[in-house]
Amino acid sequence: MLIVGELINSSRKPIAEAIQAQDAEAIKKVAKEQYEAGAHYIDVNAGTFVGKEAEYMEWLVKTVQGATDAPCCLDSPDPKVIERGLAVHKGTAMINSISLERERFEALVPIISGTDLKVIALCMSDEGMPETKDQRMKIADKLINLLVQKNVKIENIYVDPLVQPISTNSIFGVEFLNAVEEIMERFPGVHTICGLSNVSYGLPMRKLLNQNFAVMAVAKGLDALIINPLDKRMMANLIAAEALVGRDQYCMNYLKAYRENKLDV
Amino acid sequence: MLIVGELINSSRKPIAEAIQAQDAEAIKKVAKEQYEAGAHYIDVNAGTFVGKEAEYMEWLVKTVQGATDAPCCLDSPDPKVIERGLAVHKGTAMINSISLERERFEALVPIISGTDLKVIALCMSDEGMPETKDQRMKIADKLINLLVQKNVKIENIYVDPLVQPISTNSIFGVEFLNAVEEIMERFPGVHTICGLSNVSYGLPMRKLLNQNFAVMAVAKGLDALIINPLDKRMMANLIAAEALVGRDQYCMNYLKAYRENKLDV
Repeated sequence: MLIVGELINSSRKPIAEAIQAQDAEAIKKVAKEQYEAGAHYIDVNAGTFVGKEAEYMEWLVKTVQGATDAPCCLDSPDPKVIERGLAVHKGTAMINSISLERERFEALVPIISGTDLKVIALCMSDEGMPETKDQRMKIADKLINLLVQKNVKIENIYVDPLVQPISTNSIFGVEFLNAVEEIMERFPGVHTICGLSNVSYGLPMRKLLNQNFAVMAVAKGLDALIINPLDKRMMANLIAAEALVGRDQYCMNYLKAYRENKLDV
Repeated sequence: MLIVGELINSSRKPIAEAIQAQDAEAIKKVAKEQYEAGAHYIDVNAGTFVGKEAEYMEWLVKTVQGATDAPCCLDSPDPKVIERGLAVHKGTAMINSISLERERFEALVPIISGTDLKVIALCMSDEGMPETKDQRMKIADKLINLLVQKNVKIENIYVDPLVQPISTNSIFGVEFLNAVEEIMERFPGVHTICGLSNVSYGLPMRKLLNQNFAVMAVAKGLDALIINPLDKRMMANLIAAEALVGRDQYCMNYLKAYRENKLDV
């Protein structure tokens, strides 16, 4: 299971303040904590700083990679911001994200074409956000095929079927889960990823919903997540879930986590 | 989601002692607690009392139904024990369980044929316990068809694909989960049920595995469980899981559970 740590995002107040103040220590701390908690990629987003996003992206990448060995997940729809981050990035970055929206696709695809970059491919088109499994499949199909045609290796594509709130429509959870399953079946080698928090929007006890939805998505084949890796119950649940679906031979990772006292939360 | 409370089982020491001493109050207490925690059926099992099982089954049914309005799940492979329990049972009981093992099938089928009894149908045959999804499907297919031929309504059949420990073989979890999904797809109207505890046999932190496996099985379509309903985290997870797969319109049950303080465990 690939974990992208989501905490370094300028939409979060303490992060925005640290970016504004160029407080490298504060950013490094959050990067380190996430890495030590099991994040494989550290998401970096400076999207709220209009006009300064590219500059701050460069600073975030340098700062995060000054504190950890983890690669970054460069989080911006703007190719200029992505390029600025890539220019200073060490190792193989992940791009968050491309979509089937024409302008976004055409602007970003030259950056990733023919490279080893990993890319999050949102199931979003110019017609908007999909609601049903079939709408997601239609977009995923086109997007995966276009990316492969543009020399992106299928194993570097992380399709995000886009979670929508069950408080809006009770079928939104199951339509997402079924899309994950069908994408993993129909496109061998591709990955699926998502952020979770939308699913619980408008409801109380959001963590309980997010934690359980993550586990359900793993049951359906999801193999990457954008989450807060400092949520200990989430991480324990995911370690258990991986063992339960046979992704943890001899339960070795589960037993290691047990010995390291990571399961009893 | 149909919940069968599993606690009144003579393999548990305090229950064996209460049965032996004919301590009705002790049994009633466990029945009531399970019912109030959300169990729809109360499992009753006196299987360790060889020679007295039928007599104790009768007493258990009377005792449990003297304390709660819940129907019982009569838990024995012995048709004589089941009949003795049924003779005093009020309402529609569940039978736990029939299987494709020839002797067991032929002894039990006359009791349930043409009735409204619910029946747990174990994916077990004279060739033993299945390991793969395909072995389970073969047994489930025969068993469901035979039961329907014998005048058992498909909506009264609860197929148990039989959980096996992931510590024995890491694929045992996923083979079970995929069987649940295929049974629910191929036999519209049928239910799937299971006990969970085998999945975590031989591993530490068994509750964590059981709780997550339950949620994963719900994602795959499972709609009944034999569990300890006093496990508050398990129950909270299941309420969340039901909302997440669209079985809880407008999340009304989830919101009710939140107001009753059942989610924050």
